[in-house]
Amino acid sequence: METTQISDIKIIKSPTSKIDSVDFETLTFGKQFTDHMLVCDFIDGEWHQPIIMPYAPFEMDPSSRVFHYGQAIFEGMKAYRDAQDEIWLFRPDQNYERFNKSAIRLAMPEVPEHIFMDGLKELIKIDANWIKKGNGNALYIRPFMIGTSDGVIASPSLNFKFCIILSPVKSYYSGEVKVVIADHFSRAANGGIGAAKAAGNYAAQFYPTKLANQKGFQQVIWTDDTTHTKLEESGTMNVFFRINDTLITAPVSERILDGVTRKSLLAIAERDGIKTEVRSITVNEIVDAHRNGSLKEIFGAGTAAVVSLIAGFQYKDEYFELPQVADRFATQLKEKLNAIQYNEAEDTFNWTVKL
Amino acid sequence: METTQISDIKIIKSPTSKIDSVDFETLTFGKQFTDHMLVCDFIDGEWHQPIIMPYAPFEMDPSSRVFHYGQAIFEGMKAYRDAQDEIWLFRPDQNYERFNKSAIRLAMPEVPEHIFMDGLKELIKIDANWIKKGNGNALYIRPFMIGTSDGVIASPSLNFKFCIILSPVKSYYSGEVKVVIADHFSRAANGGIGAAKAAGNYAAQFYPTKLANQKGFQQVIWTDDTTHTKLEESGTMNVFFRINDTLITAPVSERILDGVTRKSLLAIAERDGIKTEVRSITVNEIVDAHRNGSLKEIFGAGTAAVVSLIAGFQYKDEYFELPQVADRFATQLKEKLNAIQYNEAEDTFNWTVKL
Ligand SMILES: Cc1ncc(COP(=O)(O)O)c(C=O)c1O
Ligand SMILES: Cc1ncc(COP(=O)(O)O)c(C=O)c1O
Repeated sequence: METTQISDIKIIKSPTSKIDSVDFETLTFGKQFTDHMLVCDFIDGEWHQPIIMPYAPFEMDPSSRVFHYGQAIFEGMKAYRDAQDEIWLFRPDQNYERFNKSAIRLAMPEVPEHIFMDGLKELIKIDANWIKKGNGNALYIRPFMIGTSDGVIASPSLNFKFCIILSPVKSYYSGEVKVVIADHFSRAANGGIGAAKAAGNYAAQFYPTKLANQKGFQQVIWTDDTTHTKLEESGTMNVFFRINDTLITAPVSERILDGVTRKSLLAIAERDGIKTEVRSITVNEIVDAHRNGSLKEIFGAGTAAVVSLIAGFQYKDEYFELPQVADRFATQLKEKLNAIQYNEAEDTFNWTVKL
Repeated sequence: METTQISDIKIIKSPTSKIDSVDFETLTFGKQFTDHMLVCDFIDGEWHQPIIMPYAPFEMDPSSRVFHYGQAIFEGMKAYRDAQDEIWLFRPDQNYERFNKSAIRLAMPEVPEHIFMDGLKELIKIDANWIKKGNGNALYIRPFMIGTSDGVIASPSLNFKFCIILSPVKSYYSGEVKVVIADHFSRAANGGIGAAKAAGNYAAQFYPTKLANQKGFQQVIWTDDTTHTKLEESGTMNVFFRINDTLITAPVSERILDGVTRKSLLAIAERDGIKTEVRSITVNEIVDAHRNGSLKEIFGAGTAAVVSLIAGFQYKDEYFELPQVADRFATQLKEKLNAIQYNEAEDTFNWTVKL
């Protein structure tokens, strides 16, 4: 293998590439990985040298903290290739900041900016041929960190592994999404870790989501765990509601992830004259709005799908089908956001970063 | 290596033992492991053959579900050696049942009884010389299960690894424990996973516990996340309060783990004429009881330490020092429970299981 060193990143190139064995037309989201990964260990209070190396399994002691106490966080972002073959990142500073906020909440060390950002850019450059042109094609970027110290004692790990892996993806179409509004299960506690991208938050959602799936619903819209009346978020997405011509979404809080897509869609909507309200919105309000015909759209917003249209929602024993509206806010906003991400429209916000 | 097969467990013996390198006088809880472990994989909807093999690292793909979505559960129990050199388990059926309850809540497959129980017993027999005689000495048993499927998509793993590792331990003395009563942070949501021994619950506690540590407190007593008035549990222990001569502990719920030590202490107390109450107990009630002199004891109860005496508690800006009482319930109950566990007293409850 060829070994070089760029700034303080050690690079060990893979002697071969898997790329020719990959069918880019039939990619499953998050299943296929590129040839390289970035790994950086935190040991004895210090970050060691980041290494870009061939994608390969980790050796982990069975007593590693992450297996027993769930000390694990992650981020999700994308890189895009434009028509001129330039590669773009979208608001990576936001993911970096959020990653370190998650780290603090999970008692993990913050990752220095140069390791996260330079590591990310260097890694993407090396595997740049995995990013295909064309709308919907992208490279999904997954930075994550796990507690690696040995020992089955419920205290924070001392050692950690920060890692970035890359997965080529196509446009993510979730199909017609019917959701259940949670009236018993919850994903986050007041004073809990809902606002962090902590691994444990997702496992907590699987069982209630499975119950919903068995009844023919694809997702759950989570509500506050105290009253189950406030609509909060869904799976890996924030949620928007359009009542008449106003777009409403819950404020971020200790329970709700501060989604990059959410805040970007809000900014575009505001710029383009769509009335937005960031406030608590309750189940009763949307049920009433549905009954009087003012509830026009519900959609999820997140990096994977950008927006995901919701066809209807179940609350307790009743199913509420959403109307078919022309000129959906969801579709307009998705197109505008995508156009910025693929460098097809002027980036009036200064969000994109050229590689 | 010698390979044999007992019932349907494959056994691969370690050619050497680490036991001579271990100083049994200075063990750190959960840091040292025996020579063997049990591993059993769940793949394509089926449990494969359990294997007892030399303790060794796992190879894990960087995209394994457990690293990203926290699908991981565990149990904690102990084996004891009595004066006649017999080895005893304490209520392993309770841990087995709880493990599978955790599995269901985390959308993981239940582990069949023969894999869990026969696997456990066979493994302990093989490493039986790691269990030393003498009060306080024990073998800490850690069954756990992790999601091993590849892929960074937030849906349940299809493949899982069930594993048992063993750690020799000495009596666990936590020293003088001062606690903070949580008035902002929480460990569990209504409708969440607090009642499961899910890995993610523990990582969520680390940061608030670290803040408490920095102020000179060793643990946090968690309260309900809605009102922060109900006293629930602490770290890896349920909590008992003695007001005058009544022993009070919160009922188990969706938020509170159904601790084996808790219910065993309750049973012993009831058998021996200590008045017990299983009901919600509030911060105001213990503050008032402290002020009028009726609050006699607070202690934690869990497998690791059996009981852990609490010296005082901080609530908001006030510190409440507990009185020094003679004939503590905590001490009496601990001795009685230990006597059953070490086969030194009659087991009127039929709790112990001889290996
Ligand atoms: C719980 C949760 N909410 C919302 C989102 C959306 O965040 P973003 O738009 O930054 O992808 C995510 C992330 O993907 C998430 O995991
Ligand atoms: C959160 C929590 N509460 C209570 C306990 C006590 O349970 P047990 O007595 O079964 O060890 C534990 C486990 O160790 C725990 O993790």
